[in-house]
Amino acid sequence: MAGHGNGNGEEVKLLGIWFSPYVRRVVWALELKGIDYEWVELSFRDPKNRSRSLLEHNPVLKRVPVLVHRGRPVVESLVIVEYIDETWRNNPVLPLDPYERAVARFWANFVDQKITEVLIKLLSLTDKTQMEEEAKQASKALEIVDRELKAKGKKFFGGETIGLVDIALSIVTNWMEAIEEVLDVRIFDSRTHPLIAQWKTNFVEFVRHNLPPKDGLLRFYRRYHQSKIASVAPSRL
Amino acid sequence: MAGHGNGNGEEVKLLGIWFSPYVRRVVWALELKGIDYEWVELSFRDPKNRSRSLLEHNPVLKRVPVLVHRGRPVVESLVIVEYIDETWRNNPVLPLDPYERAVARFWANFVDQKITEVLIKLLSLTDKTQMEEEAKQASKALEIVDRELKAKGKKFFGGETIGLVDIALSIVTNWMEAIEEVLDVRIFDSRTHPLIAQWKTNFVEFVRHNLPPKDGLLRFYRRYHQSKIASVAPSRL
Repeated sequence: MAGHGNGNGEEVKLLGIWFSPYVRRVVWALELKGIDYEWVELSFRDPKNRSRSLLEHNPVLKRVPVLVHRGRPVVESLVIVEYIDETWRNNPVLPLDPYERAVARFWANFVDQKITEVLIKLLSLTDKTQMEEEAKQASKALEIVDRELKAKGKKFFGGETIGLVDIALSIVTNWMEAIEEVLDVRIFDSRTHPLIAQWKTNFVEFVRHNLPPKDGLLRFYRRYHQSKIASVAPSRL
Repeated sequence: MAGHGNGNGEEVKLLGIWFSPYVRRVVWALELKGIDYEWVELSFRDPKNRSRSLLEHNPVLKRVPVLVHRGRPVVESLVIVEYIDETWRNNPVLPLDPYERAVARFWANFVDQKITEVLIKLLSLTDKTQMEEEAKQASKALEIVDRELKAKGKKFFGGETIGLVDIALSIVTNWMEAIEEVLDVRIFDSRTHPLIAQWKTNFVEFVRHNLPPKDGLLRFYRRYHQSKIASVAPSRL
């Protein structure tokens, strides 16, 4: 899993986990720039090695992704993406104009707070009514994103290639589809999100189907959700 | 409430509310740069005019701060601060080096998620045990920030002047003090946060005491917390 040469021989290492939507953001940013990097999978099956790596590289939050460049760790997915964009200037991920940059940051944060974080929260919920209410709010947020994409009138938020907002919005591809299936809730609807429907096809094609496979995500999220249900069971009896 | 001339005669307008910690971040960034701006107070006492302004300038989130520059709105406090820093290059708020910028963004987000958001959540809680648990977590997060400031060995995270992290951390001044008093919880402790104790003094002096007055915050937060308690009362009876 490597790019096409970073042209300067500097070591770039990415600590990740295959299913994480946050780690994948960094993968695409690196590949957009054509940067060679080493992928280090922090397997869930080797918790000891995993905690040692995280304690060393991300002692405050102890989570992936971690990008190690020139021996120094950079953490938090959107912070890493901006770091990559400011370090390697070819193929910009953010627009160059300050106002356009602010708009991109706004929408990336909007998607994170109103869609990505809600999806992850959904997996921990056990009350079906609350689950459906949260899903409805995420669906409404996605409608707002759909209108914004329509107003923009481009293939991607980044124009003809993907940018910061597209990288954040990637959650609505395989991840959201898997979570909807596991929880039997519906967020995406091609009638209320027609632009997003087309965007999904374009995005998956643009990243060359470099996504965690949906069947793998289904298995993983199903197990995760069941463990959450099991852990609250005693107090509900 | 204005700066010392932005040198280019462009209209800069800030829509805010006096007590908001998020709005104040923008005030300091503008004043650091010496930018003339018009302050537009969106009073809580005039909800009609307030909603009209917010619908016009921030239709997606409908909240302050909103910075209007050249007739275009920029929203979300940290996004606005970065916009100001990228638009007016004097007196940098973020470091210039990409790695240092990533570190500053990381800590600003850390303070937001682990301290600022927790403080605001505390005001909506009614269960004392939960309140104390959340306060304890925020206090631990502040210990981590204290260690980082010690490791940095400077007056501010920004060095000799305030930067992005200091602007985010401002929440621990009058706002946190008022919330601790209203809820009778304790987060800040000069024994476990000795560097933050000194930082608070330095910060308040640096911004020339340009903070919402503590007695005003006390009154506002007390009323706010009581309205939250009242609104959950029926279901708890």
